[in-house]
Amino acid sequence: MKKAIVVFSGGMDSTTLLHWAVQKGYEVYGLSFDYGQRHKKELEFAKYWGKKLCKWHKILDLSFMREIAGNSALLDTSQEIPEEHYTHENQKITVVANRNMVMLSIAVALAENIGAEVVFFGPHQNDNTIYPDCRPEFVEAVSRASQLATYKNVRIEAPFVRMKKSDIATLGTELKVDFSKTWSCYKGGEKHCGKCATCQERKEAFEKAGIEDPTEYEVGS
Amino acid sequence: MKKAIVVFSGGMDSTTLLHWAVQKGYEVYGLSFDYGQRHKKELEFAKYWGKKLCKWHKILDLSFMREIAGNSALLDTSQEIPEEHYTHENQKITVVANRNMVMLSIAVALAENIGAEVVFFGPHQNDNTIYPDCRPEFVEAVSRASQLATYKNVRIEAPFVRMKKSDIATLGTELKVDFSKTWSCYKGGEKHCGKCATCQERKEAFEKAGIEDPTEYEVGS
Repeated sequence: MKKAIVVFSGGMDSTTLLHWAVQKGYEVYGLSFDYGQRHKKELEFAKYWGKKLCKWHKILDLSFMREIAGNSALLDTSQEIPEEHYTHENQKITVVANRNMVMLSIAVALAENIGAEVVFFGPHQNDNTIYPDCRPEFVEAVSRASQLATYKNVRIEAPFVRMKKSDIATLGTELKVDFSKTWSCYKGGEKHCGKCATCQERKEAFEKAGIEDPTEYEVGS
Repeated sequence: MKKAIVVFSGGMDSTTLLHWAVQKGYEVYGLSFDYGQRHKKELEFAKYWGKKLCKWHKILDLSFMREIAGNSALLDTSQEIPEEHYTHENQKITVVANRNMVMLSIAVALAENIGAEVVFFGPHQNDNTIYPDCRPEFVEAVSRASQLATYKNVRIEAPFVRMKKSDIATLGTELKVDFSKTWSCYKGGEKHCGKCATCQERKEAFEKAGIEDPTEYEVGS
């Protein structure tokens, strides 16, 4: 059985990715990261899916990220999470510098060690505007670096990188993903706030896909 | 003043690199890593140079590396460090999978945050045989990924990647590096063992450069 690493957070995109990889016939090793994100709640869902679908799942502690990239509003709770659209310029304050490359490098190390041929991660087209490390050209470049860095030429792939989030809602529904067990909200409260950019984006994805949104929002359910 | 991150370990190559970057006029921010290496002793020297030459220096804890790449003899003390030449096939057991990409990604995150334009690290030609993540083509690829992942197009450079270790001994001497305050031995004992591959390589570098070796070895001083 071919082995793959899936990097997933407990959000709707990477949870769909996890289902997709299992469906493709991979033996899946899961990696999630505690990097000091204020929406740590996503990791409860990561744990749930890790147990259910992975051969092996670990949540690694990257608390050093706060020391070197702590100016992001995702890590620094003294900053407000902006409530504009996810493509709005001020969403830049939610960028955690080079986060994906850090996570992918660690995943590649694990892949090389257990003989997995590929690392999957879940960026998509909507992420492109604000997050440079979610663009197709970054995925290609980081995969090339990974292949050169390893004896087993480990690849990195982002199967959803050219899809919209609404396409992922559709695909996830086909794959029977229980989206009520996924987390998006950057604020990380008891329920999804319904107002921050990721909540707006989540709502919009279900709407555009014409799929019932199972999420309980504080505002606008 | 232009800012640079220098990734350094306290070994003779990266200590020379640190001097080189300061001489070039960079304001240097240093990063070193505790990744569970048995030759943790190198970090005492990293700390010494960090205080002396850096605007700011941090040693980050990457203890998760043992969980995901723990089969390397550098991390697993139940394995013997081989004593063959540094180009010998069996030195492969000292490879820590994807170590450089992990460290560089973290350094790039810091660079993006403090506005440093470049990350320097110190691989050289002798490393090429065994460590794929020390080759020029890897440096190029990882630099491209880094530039694409960041708003400020942070570059990664390895100024010594085509030099031999003996050239570094020569350059370091020109730059007045005190090599007695650097550490190479993989065994990480009180003194340099004088027998492991890195000790052999260190000795050879000074010999070939015709420079007096200030190192105290257990064997063959």
